[in-house]
Amino acid sequence: MTDLAPRIGISLGDPGGIGPEVIKKSLSSQQALKQAFYIVYAPESVIKNVFFDVQIQKIPTDGKTDDFVSTGLYFHEIKEKGRIFPGGPSEENGRVSYRSFRQALEDVRQGRTDALVTAPISKHSWSLAGIPWAGHTHYLQHLYPEAMMTFWSRNLKVALFTHHIPLREAVKAVKTDSLYTFIRLLDQNLDRLKFGPRRILIAGLNPHAGEEGLLGTEEKSTILPAIDMAREQGIAVEGPFPPDTVFRMARGDEKAFVVGLYHDQGLIAFKWEAFEEGVNATLGLPFLRTSPDHGTAFDIAGQGSANPASMIQSLELARRYAFRLKRPHPNPE
Amino acid sequence: MTDLAPRIGISLGDPGGIGPEVIKKSLSSQQALKQAFYIVYAPESVIKNVFFDVQIQKIPTDGKTDDFVSTGLYFHEIKEKGRIFPGGPSEENGRVSYRSFRQALEDVRQGRTDALVTAPISKHSWSLAGIPWAGHTHYLQHLYPEAMMTFWSRNLKVALFTHHIPLREAVKAVKTDSLYTFIRLLDQNLDRLKFGPRRILIAGLNPHAGEEGLLGTEEKSTILPAIDMAREQGIAVEGPFPPDTVFRMARGDEKAFVVGLYHDQGLIAFKWEAFEEGVNATLGLPFLRTSPDHGTAFDIAGQGSANPASMIQSLELARRYAFRLKRPHPNPE
Repeated sequence: MTDLAPRIGISLGDPGGIGPEVIKKSLSSQQALKQAFYIVYAPESVIKNVFFDVQIQKIPTDGKTDDFVSTGLYFHEIKEKGRIFPGGPSEENGRVSYRSFRQALEDVRQGRTDALVTAPISKHSWSLAGIPWAGHTHYLQHLYPEAMMTFWSRNLKVALFTHHIPLREAVKAVKTDSLYTFIRLLDQNLDRLKFGPRRILIAGLNPHAGEEGLLGTEEKSTILPAIDMAREQGIAVEGPFPPDTVFRMARGDEKAFVVGLYHDQGLIAFKWEAFEEGVNATLGLPFLRTSPDHGTAFDIAGQGSANPASMIQSLELARRYAFRLKRPHPNPE
Repeated sequence: MTDLAPRIGISLGDPGGIGPEVIKKSLSSQQALKQAFYIVYAPESVIKNVFFDVQIQKIPTDGKTDDFVSTGLYFHEIKEKGRIFPGGPSEENGRVSYRSFRQALEDVRQGRTDALVTAPISKHSWSLAGIPWAGHTHYLQHLYPEAMMTFWSRNLKVALFTHHIPLREAVKAVKTDSLYTFIRLLDQNLDRLKFGPRRILIAGLNPHAGEEGLLGTEEKSTILPAIDMAREQGIAVEGPFPPDTVFRMARGDEKAFVVGLYHDQGLIAFKWEAFEEGVNATLGLPFLRTSPDHGTAFDIAGQGSANPASMIQSLELARRYAFRLKRPHPNPE
């Protein structure tokens, strides 16, 4: 008898990019395979071409995962209509990666899997296939408006208050009410993950966090009131801190989460630190979704040189937290 | 006979902070002393208390440095009126640090020294002493409007297009003409330093550098035209690049200089990378001025635990480039 093992759904990403390769490399670690059921959503052709030298078992097309008899590697077949284009975007690549994502998402929403890991898609391929979404997060935020972008690495964890909007608008979007709501949601999401003791560090908006109003007023007028409101609710939140040192304050502190007020404030330090092994984790969903923090890398696809570190960390984070958001399912083992 | 050695003036910084300690620790390296004349601008009391165990020679109060007979350590006496307050800001600390800076600046402007290194002052002490300047850079920019803040470390070099203004204003300050002028000045300053081959990398303003206009328009409307104008002048400039990856592109490339469009864009990665040993170098002056990238650290002053790495790098950068901006003076050796 073993402990209950989570079922991790893995969408393929763009089949012309490095997604299939990093998934396969990550899952070739037998260490990982013992601890979970991994289900890759992929066409037969990708399984034949990329997963030819690993033990992988096809699951019934109705997606029933209750029949799993041991932890290990499975695939859920995604039908192809045309030929996948290697090393670049194409309409068929867009269709396949979208179907893979949609099926993996459907399964985790229906409780047939316990967490979702998404390999990188190409917006260009999606656009060629007529798919109107800008990416996974865009789609997920449509379904779950409280979805929250967070980034995890060994030394630094970051949550983004705003992300894919122009900086000019991001500056204006810093409001007391919405920042307070964001801090509260982040704290609740960490509760749901049973994250344990935490320090939420809020970055200021202006140089030196406004330096007593000399270099900007938003810290006093807008950000501090939101922090005070959250502290009154018992939330362990501090700040606002100078944006150029707050990341350093959090460095190596497992309890620390930095809130970046805009995309690049949050991601400049993160990408500097964790370029190879950073994980993008979407919180605020009924399940955990993680994703490697890199793109399709069409330029090196098919060469066998892609680094799987970020995918390995994405799988590991999903495995570790899968059951914290969901009740364990009855496993046959 | 030795090679000509540069004369490096060193202002004390706030005498109640860690400035005197990191200067003394840095200069205790005999290796350094052989290569230059170092002149510390300090009161006799500081010399007695902090430099008691190093060979240091008082120079005539008229500042004549032509009489130096060998490389090594000298001090130029700064008169005290009251008592220095250790471990915190005070009016006398403000007066002493201001006089030290002003005398060191006067000497480098008059050609009595070849470069200026400034230890950290306290704005609070300056304010208590009635000194209206926010700091060294503020003062220098008043004298030299084209002064430019740059940051140097082993793995990353950054120049700031704007710095001590609110983010809201920094966004509006991104204009084609002023950005073009900045790029040209940076390139000219690097020419004057005989910096050699270079790559000037311009960060975008918006997430993903605007992503073809979807996430902001300034890249196309404002930044790219400035880069194109500079390239037409033969300047080795590229971009705009996504702000969260441009620093990574420059990492470890000795030729690379990243232009950050606003304070925190430039300094988040730099402070993450080079917190202990970063150097702030002011370009655009008739001489090179460097400074450690840390503050007075009143909380640890006087304990002997301050890390001199950033001061050592500041002295080294000043020594290396001193003669590139100025003609070597005739040394007696």
